[in-house]
Amino acid sequence: MINPTEQPLSAYTQIRNVLPPGEFFTVEQGKEFSTLEIAYETYGELNEKRDNAILLLHALSGDAHVKSHGPDDLMGWWEYFVGPGAAIDTDRFFVICSNVIGGCRGSLGPASIDPQTGKPYGLKFPVITIQDMVRAQRLLVNSLGIEKLYAVVGGSMGGMQALEWSLTFPDLVEKVVPIATTARLSSQSMAFDVVGRHAIMSDPLFNDGNYYDSKDTRISGLSLARMIAHITYLSEDSMNYKFGRKLQKSDRLKFNFDTEFQVESYLHYQGQKFVSRFDANSYLYITKAMSYFDLHSRANDDLAKVFANARSQFFIVTYLSDWLFPPEQGREIVNAIRNNGLHVSYVNIPMMFGHDSFLLDEEYLPQVVKEFLYEGRDDI
Amino acid sequence: MINPTEQPLSAYTQIRNVLPPGEFFTVEQGKEFSTLEIAYETYGELNEKRDNAILLLHALSGDAHVKSHGPDDLMGWWEYFVGPGAAIDTDRFFVICSNVIGGCRGSLGPASIDPQTGKPYGLKFPVITIQDMVRAQRLLVNSLGIEKLYAVVGGSMGGMQALEWSLTFPDLVEKVVPIATTARLSSQSMAFDVVGRHAIMSDPLFNDGNYYDSKDTRISGLSLARMIAHITYLSEDSMNYKFGRKLQKSDRLKFNFDTEFQVESYLHYQGQKFVSRFDANSYLYITKAMSYFDLHSRANDDLAKVFANARSQFFIVTYLSDWLFPPEQGREIVNAIRNNGLHVSYVNIPMMFGHDSFLLDEEYLPQVVKEFLYEGRDDI
Repeated sequence: MINPTEQPLSAYTQIRNVLPPGEFFTVEQGKEFSTLEIAYETYGELNEKRDNAILLLHALSGDAHVKSHGPDDLMGWWEYFVGPGAAIDTDRFFVICSNVIGGCRGSLGPASIDPQTGKPYGLKFPVITIQDMVRAQRLLVNSLGIEKLYAVVGGSMGGMQALEWSLTFPDLVEKVVPIATTARLSSQSMAFDVVGRHAIMSDPLFNDGNYYDSKDTRISGLSLARMIAHITYLSEDSMNYKFGRKLQKSDRLKFNFDTEFQVESYLHYQGQKFVSRFDANSYLYITKAMSYFDLHSRANDDLAKVFANARSQFFIVTYLSDWLFPPEQGREIVNAIRNNGLHVSYVNIPMMFGHDSFLLDEEYLPQVVKEFLYEGRDDI
Repeated sequence: MINPTEQPLSAYTQIRNVLPPGEFFTVEQGKEFSTLEIAYETYGELNEKRDNAILLLHALSGDAHVKSHGPDDLMGWWEYFVGPGAAIDTDRFFVICSNVIGGCRGSLGPASIDPQTGKPYGLKFPVITIQDMVRAQRLLVNSLGIEKLYAVVGGSMGGMQALEWSLTFPDLVEKVVPIATTARLSSQSMAFDVVGRHAIMSDPLFNDGNYYDSKDTRISGLSLARMIAHITYLSEDSMNYKFGRKLQKSDRLKFNFDTEFQVESYLHYQGQKFVSRFDANSYLYITKAMSYFDLHSRANDDLAKVFANARSQFFIVTYLSDWLFPPEQGREIVNAIRNNGLHVSYVNIPMMFGHDSFLLDEEYLPQVVKEFLYEGRDDI
């Protein structure tokens, strides 16, 4: 398998217009689209009853390629979580993963061609919401001949989408697994995104989002945004454990401004790698969608009321060391669901690696998610 | 009093060369200076015994102007903490505050003229350390006719300097008050500074530190660095309390990328204000000095050994909600000092405003610091 650095789309990524002929897709902001291209991948087989489909939902920087399709394929972002016998068992379930709209990995987004101008939308693309993403996903699911999903599973922004599925389409999803997520960003989490967006927009190379024809599209503001965000994905303990104050190459201080500490070269590397694979405009649109996501606001800050029409079974997962979306925010969701007499399980996983723990190859999360998904499904 | 926005130096700031004739000042990195200009202010009167002098030590973005000298003067950064009858009582003590070397508020730093070229040093200025800052302060104190300080008091980077005074000049300071500080930056705290420095250095206007002759010196990378840092100065609770998710001007989402949330306009304002009063090169030098500060490394990670030669009385102050330099890091210092049988008091102030709590006009800190300073000084 090939490590997904500077990765092109996987050869297994399919792109299709999911709009039925003659229909339009209207986003919350109001703009209508007459075609809606979605990049997606599938794993396993849809059964005859068409009731074994699971939709996986990616985080900010993820895409449709959740898992490699074979030894010659690129590794996916949840490689070990999905597969034959894995937590998301592709021998039993038909697994779908798509790139969110607003993204830059094949789905409709700011880099798509605006039919009115023949050029990429750039910042003329409408600001979209998590609900817009989910409504586009529903059209994809329908276009695959599936009416109802067995489950939706996602972490971080993928968890927001999972919650949104249970609210926008309460009868169309049986089990919902939001992981390391929140019903709304705190002021602090929003602030980190604010600075990231500001870094991009104040970079001269960004040029108001019109950089697709430029020779140099390595926007350092995007690299900075990623570096800032990356700090929030790790816990203080895990950073101390991984890097501490260790120097990169020598045991003596350099007394200059070259890259010197390990944490410094790690963050620089993460930033540079990201610029080579992600679109700056998409970063703006996706983080803005996260900032706009606010379930509390839908019922005057009474989160329990927001879940009044939900019908699914829930399994909420938080991580003890996640300070971006801390466990309290997960428990708030658990309580809101429980107040409606709905089935909700909850686990706060005591791992030290912070917000990004759910992406690691470890044993806890796969085991508990597997149990939740298998419960009541002896038939498959 | 005039609010210190876009402030020039106070009319009361004095600048003097503190080097005795014929002497040199050599920084840790090796470079020798034949003059050492320090900007400072004094308050109150030195007594006859010359034993009532207190040196106040400023944080990253502070300067010598700790307190206004009258109603026509600019407000200082610790306005309510210093003055007649205040915690630092200028009726009893002779109070000195100076701008650190490496800074941009009158003391020797990267904007100073390099006598060899007749131009500002820029990045030719040597990387300095907290110890270099403290050694320069000692020369200032001596030049004012004072051999021994009654106390040193400082928060954040000022607290690092306070600790350094107790170690570099153990017999020259009686009482030491490090507030909201640490014996070394954690990997996470260092990471925020890494990104801030990267933001400055990757800004085209920075031009490798040679921007003093430019028409446009409003380096947006410095603004970004300040925005990032500002998040770390506040607690999550205080940000939720101050801004929450409130919109700036309207009750409807804008669906564009203009400044929209209150936390967004606040951070933009902080960033812009900072650029108009602070030098980007100084930001690099001062944050690097903080990154290099590592007391543990001086005795193979055994902090108690580091304080083996200390002689002062200590009063360590932390803030419960400070996640930049969390209370554990303060208690580590307390334990190290206590292991040497030295006098050390400690308080963890239960305020919710995060790291910057010590700069607020409140009652707790002034009271406890005042008590510590008065103890055993009925004579003044």
